Amino acid sequence: MGGSSFGTLFRVTTFGESHGKGVGCVVDGIPPRLPISKEEIQAELDRRRPGQSRITTPRKESDTCEIYSGWADGETLGTPMCIMVPNTDQKSQDYSEMSLAYRPSHADAVYDMKYGIRAVAGGGRSSARETIGRVAAGAIAKKLLHIVAGVEILAYVNRVRDVDCEVDNETFTLEDVEANDVRCPDQEAAKAMYKAIDEVRLRGDSCGGEVTCVVRNCPKGVGAPVFDKLEAELAKALMSLPATKGIEIGSGFSGSKMLGSEHNDEFYMTPDGEVRTRTNRSGGIQGGLANGETIVAKLAFKPTSTISRKQKTVSRDGEDTDLVARGRHDPCVVPRAVPMVEAMVALVLADQLLQHYAQCELLPRKGACSPDTRAASQFQHIIASTPSIRTPATV
Amino acid sequence: MGGSSFGTLFRVTTFGESHGKGVGCVVDGIPPRLPISKEEIQAELDRRRPGQSRITTPRKESDTCEIYSGWADGETLGTPMCIMVPNTDQKSQDYSEMSLAYRPSHADAVYDMKYGIRAVAGGGRSSARETIGRVAAGAIAKKLLHIVAGVEILAYVNRVRDVDCEVDNETFTLEDVEANDVRCPDQEAAKAMYKAIDEVRLRGDSCGGEVTCVVRNCPKGVGAPVFDKLEAELAKALMSLPATKGIEIGSGFSGSKMLGSEHNDEFYMTPDGEVRTRTNRSGGIQGGLANGETIVAKLAFKPTSTISRKQKTVSRDGEDTDLVARGRHDPCVVPRAVPMVEAMVALVLADQLLQHYAQCELLPRKGACSPDTRAASQFQHIIASTPSIRTPATV
Amino acid sequence: MGGSSFGTLFRVTTFGESHGKGVGCVVDGIPPRLPISKEEIQAELDRRRPGQSRITTPRKESDTCEIYSGWADGETLGTPMCIMVPNTDQKSQDYSEMSLAYRPSHADAVYDMKYGIRAVAGGGRSSARETIGRVAAGAIAKKLLHIVAGVEILAYVNRVRDVDCEVDNETFTLEDVEANDVRCPDQEAAKAMYKAIDEVRLRGDSCGGEVTCVVRNCPKGVGAPVFDKLEAELAKALMSLPATKGIEIGSGFSGSKMLGSEHNDEFYMTPDGEVRTRTNRSGGIQGGLANGETIVAKLAFKPTSTISRKQKTVSRDGEDTDLVARGRHDPCVVPRAVPMVEAMVALVLADQLLQHYAQCELLPRKGACSPDTRAASQFQHIIASTPSIRTPATV
Amino acid sequence: MGGSSFGTLFRVTTFGESHGKGVGCVVDGIPPRLPISKEEIQAELDRRRPGQSRITTPRKESDTCEIYSGWADGETLGTPMCIMVPNTDQKSQDYSEMSLAYRPSHADAVYDMKYGIRAVAGGGRSSARETIGRVAAGAIAKKLLHIVAGVEILAYVNRVRDVDCEVDNETFTLEDVEANDVRCPDQEAAKAMYKAIDEVRLRGDSCGGEVTCVVRNCPKGVGAPVFDKLEAELAKALMSLPATKGIEIGSGFSGSKMLGSEHNDEFYMTPDGEVRTRTNRSGGIQGGLANGETIVAKLAFKPTSTISRKQKTVSRDGEDTDLVARGRHDPCVVPRAVPMVEAMVALVLADQLLQHYAQCELLPRKGACSPDTRAASQFQHIIASTPSIRTPATV
Repeated sequence: MGGSSFGTLFRVTTFGESHGKGVGCVVDGIPPRLPISKEEIQAELDRRRPGQSRITTPRKESDTCEIYSGWADGETLGTPMCIMVPNTDQKSQDYSEMSLAYRPSHADAVYDMKYGIRAVAGGGRSSARETIGRVAAGAIAKKLLHIVAGVEILAYVNRVRDVDCEVDNETFTLEDVEANDVRCPDQEAAKAMYKAIDEVRLRGDSCGGEVTCVVRNCPKGVGAPVFDKLEAELAKALMSLPATKGIEIGSGFSGSKMLGSEHNDEFYMTPDGEVRTRTNRSGGIQGGLANGETIVAKLAFKPTSTISRKQKTVSRDGEDTDLVARGRHDPCVVPRAVPMVEAMVALVLADQLLQHYAQCELLPRKGACSPDTRAASQFQHIIASTPSIRTPATV
Repeated sequence: MGGSSFGTLFRVTTFGESHGKGVGCVVDGIPPRLPISKEEIQAELDRRRPGQSRITTPRKESDTCEIYSGWADGETLGTPMCIMVPNTDQKSQDYSEMSLAYRPSHADAVYDMKYGIRAVAGGGRSSARETIGRVAAGAIAKKLLHIVAGVEILAYVNRVRDVDCEVDNETFTLEDVEANDVRCPDQEAAKAMYKAIDEVRLRGDSCGGEVTCVVRNCPKGVGAPVFDKLEAELAKALMSLPATKGIEIGSGFSGSKMLGSEHNDEFYMTPDGEVRTRTNRSGGIQGGLANGETIVAKLAFKPTSTISRKQKTVSRDGEDTDLVARGRHDPCVVPRAVPMVEAMVALVLADQLLQHYAQCELLPRKGACSPDTRAASQFQHIIASTPSIRTPATV
Repeated sequence: MGGSSFGTLFRVTTFGESHGKGVGCVVDGIPPRLPISKEEIQAELDRRRPGQSRITTPRKESDTCEIYSGWADGETLGTPMCIMVPNTDQKSQDYSEMSLAYRPSHADAVYDMKYGIRAVAGGGRSSARETIGRVAAGAIAKKLLHIVAGVEILAYVNRVRDVDCEVDNETFTLEDVEANDVRCPDQEAAKAMYKAIDEVRLRGDSCGGEVTCVVRNCPKGVGAPVFDKLEAELAKALMSLPATKGIEIGSGFSGSKMLGSEHNDEFYMTPDGEVRTRTNRSGGIQGGLANGETIVAKLAFKPTSTISRKQKTVSRDGEDTDLVARGRHDPCVVPRAVPMVEAMVALVLADQLLQHYAQCELLPRKGACSPDTRAASQFQHIIASTPSIRTPATV
Repeated sequence: MGGSSFGTLFRVTTFGESHGKGVGCVVDGIPPRLPISKEEIQAELDRRRPGQSRITTPRKESDTCEIYSGWADGETLGTPMCIMVPNTDQKSQDYSEMSLAYRPSHADAVYDMKYGIRAVAGGGRSSARETIGRVAAGAIAKKLLHIVAGVEILAYVNRVRDVDCEVDNETFTLEDVEANDVRCPDQEAAKAMYKAIDEVRLRGDSCGGEVTCVVRNCPKGVGAPVFDKLEAELAKALMSLPATKGIEIGSGFSGSKMLGSEHNDEFYMTPDGEVRTRTNRSGGIQGGLANGETIVAKLAFKPTSTISRKQKTVSRDGEDTDLVARGRHDPCVVPRAVPMVEAMVALVLADQLLQHYAQCELLPRKGACSPDTRAASQFQHIIASTPSIRTPATV
């Protein structure tokens, strides 16, 4: 497939190199009549844009998107949406040395190994600029999920190097996340994180960290046994982001140290007849399917591989050499990774929701306390209260 | 898609419930003329079979496979291979209580939420019996990878609850792994792990652990930017196994605490002109592509959710209730997860290898020290020394 | 992909060779809670079974199906359904000559060219036995389409060699089709067709013909621009049947001789506000989408390639030779092709219906005379009158 | 999937409406290091461009393509190629009436039925402008097929309305086709065809016709049983083009009137040990696989639905009305369909070739007169004589 497409029904294909004409995406399978504005897409792109603060790359890009197709007058047409963002602040000359020598732990060498050819200026497809297409597509997915089922997707930085934080996953808000440059809703911890990043930046070094993503109000039953389990889809989506080294769902690695009697989430009935769990070590997913609790995923990012300290490496023509990388790079990727993480989670859920809806909600469900009552409300109460959906032309 | 298929070119579909007629798989896209015997497939199934020791489920199943199609006289035909394993030791009556009450943290409840119907005896599709189809398909993938490129895939238990071990990922062997019931190549640690499992088993409880998988001799360049990065594909494949809660590639979460200058793997040239890295924090994957170093993945398994201790839960008709589960279950899944992990890794690599070969090895590569020299040797030196490939009929 | 799977959401994979252990299919993505009996599936298999009359192959197979998974107590579980039919009347010795010499216009030679190996007894995968899996899967698709939207799919033989018939596509019934061995609802023409087939059979020769398929009550809007147009999907599905050489939708090749003013189907409003066309040269599909009129497709089948008359050919080891084929073969495939054609059309429509439903029926449609009013009735009035859907367990 | 993607390994996604910002495609899975110039792509676009002569639509578009990504210095990078063509000569006002009234047999009405929303200016996605993306992608596929295996794909108009021609499918050239505006290599027939089109044009009417496509030197074995047979893939690809009503492979509908003894293509050995057929009623495909003979497909196009004569129809708000369409349209689509047909055939073959190569050419074939000898020459003799493939950087 080439590897640049994601999803089955809600399907995004990204394109573009970091130092070519631009980057973007085509999204096919978007439900028609979805109200979404160019501003809503741009708002997400602005969150991942470089140059937001001292702790992100100084590359200057406005990252202004153009909706090329599939959209008119504030609504989707149901046809492919192509969204493009031109590259404007390319400084290919920065990469003259790196075109000759492989940056350690960077994709330079493996691209030559795989393709036998490479866009030598910048990272090409391995650049984080590629994620612009993901974030734009994710903005559409987010809107769909919100309108159809009230789904809320929020990510934040929960660790930078060894600086941790305390956050209540059930209650923090987007405003809490966006209140600081690090994107950590624990404002005190955010300051320490900022300092940690700035410190390695000044030394020409880089550091890693963790991003947590939560999903609230995910419709029950989303996900598909056995290979397309929700945790498997999330793992693929998130581990396809640059610089990721690990992922946990719910209790994660620490959960693997517990006993079953400690780890199991007991069920109970709510007064209005809903099945819920008292704890959430499962992280909102059981048997590969959303169980209605808050989904919690945690993602580990390695330190940025491009650093301005001298490193030993080899050249493209096979000689041992030293490299002092130039170019403009984030000293720590996690602050800008937050919108990317949300986007990938949204892409997974939009696709899985459509698949679930097609397979499991076409035939009726029955019974007084039956799932169909809730299934209906899962999908429809939000729609009912969305007056912004204009009246389409009649047939 | 329903979720029961995996892979693009080398594509497996599994089928079957734990207490139905049986389980199995169909594998499409297998290269024709691959020499593989029924015994080679059975050998892998025997590794995941229940009842191997005191620390696995006492369910008795010989798990004898039948090759139904796509194979003749020890070779694949290139047509779909259907492999079936009948269920023989079903005790559906064990599940009468569980058909009424949802096991905490088990898939019972979410299957009802998703499908509005459920195979109430046993775990249905959520049972580990479903993985029989994966292991059978994985045996074929392993053979292909071995013949074509000398790839070696080995997994082992590296932790049970809080019992760790010490293993050299570059040197341990299959014999080391299979030398004990826990499947840990550190024989001393294995004893402690065995004891830890047996202890929770006697208490009617369960525990979790970790499995490490290594891949040696993976051809360079396998994997596909940007969504089908090798770590992303492995993450999806492995996180689709039952009871998984987290995955790490290479340095994983601990790598996210390091500085770039500490984490980067420096390149060097070998005397015969190969690009290698001195360290392997990348875990054999850079930029989403295999770089030729040993691939290392680590997978966290939660404690088995079915335990025989009393738990609070709710019934299918919406009443709060208590449950003391019966049925036969593993107190700890990791020993039997080892062959499942290897199978999933093999399925990813076989599929990605074929995709890489189709896209990147059809047009010639050039140059004295060029990748094509090695590409050829990557794929062909093993083939040349495989006399067992019989002469096919001529056209 | 290997080529043995069809469909995206409603996805069938067939397996099995003509002279191996058996044939069958796995169908993934089936909506759960679909009421369907084993007898309903068997009834379709009986229509394609060999040995029904003097004008079909004398091979004796009961073609009794076994539902291996994904189904319980008369309803689908939403998990993969594996359906198997063992081969019982194999006479591999009939094929000893053909294993040495390529039958002209048969798949023998090309299978050797492609795979370099071949199941030499019988046709292997190229045998019409492979279509058993399609017909079984099609029976499920038909039931789904009927329950959800009242869709009716009927095919018939409209020509044998040069014997034509007269049939009103809007009114003929399944009973009309099944009233004779040829499966032509024009009973007089059927007699002449029978005679034509029997004549070539006695001469050891074979002949071709045409099958027409009509679909009544197809929901409007099914199909997907631009590559997955409904006529494109039908063309692929039907041209994947053995022995097909051409397909027409609606006016077909004769329509290409008309003027636009003659060919266009004028629209009009029905008293109850529905958009309809006065003529149907479009064959129920416009712009790649079902427009609510009866879909009409016509399929050309070549004469069976295996004949018992002496033919010149070459042997597997590259010598010119003569061949007098033995084995048991249909003198004309069209009578038994009728249920295969219906099955493939059902597989296309079930898949496209689910895709349409997922993309276009999740968000509300608005307006007094809006499509959503009809969309609802398109899908739901039949469901409402289907009391046989039992009450599923509640959550 | 939304329907706007085609192919598995060589995969094109098209985007864009006729009166939006522009149209284009993203192609993923292209082999790296393929030499192709922007001019080669533009040359194909020029063949399908409007305004080429009096018998095509007067819409003026230069259709100048921009390669946005995936390509550098005359070679493909192996990453997605995005190619865009802006719309420049939009006259949306021409469509004010058509935005209110449905053109008979056009896609206007069904798009409203499916999506409940529509790009009312022009045909939107149903416009032939969408095929720009296909033709651009097809140019890349053609180049790949030519370099790797010497494949030659040529289409021509073989009938306009009732004006036929005589062409030898084995010998006509691209120059013969391009020697006249109709694109019929029979120059005398071309004149009569031109006259036939011009006649209906002057009357404000339209007419249909047929296009034949031949493929020379297709590698043996390309295609995949059982659903992805080569004729099935071609049928889908070609029937996805606008205005198609039927397709034939080889003998087609007329072949269905023949006896087996008349229709079968006898095999013989060439002096250099190749298996060939004396006749080619199979049209180069047997058992769903290319047999090495010339592939022949014939495609029926209906008369253009938009005509300037008054027609009865209904309005978008459900009233019976009359329509006299304006806008600029081809009186007959077949001359401009020729490059579209070639493009779709190229897309099928490139994708199937890569799939075949991955599955069947990785493991060695053996034997003196074995297929592998030829398989090698099938793919490699052309490569060997392509000095233009530059030396890539070494690793």
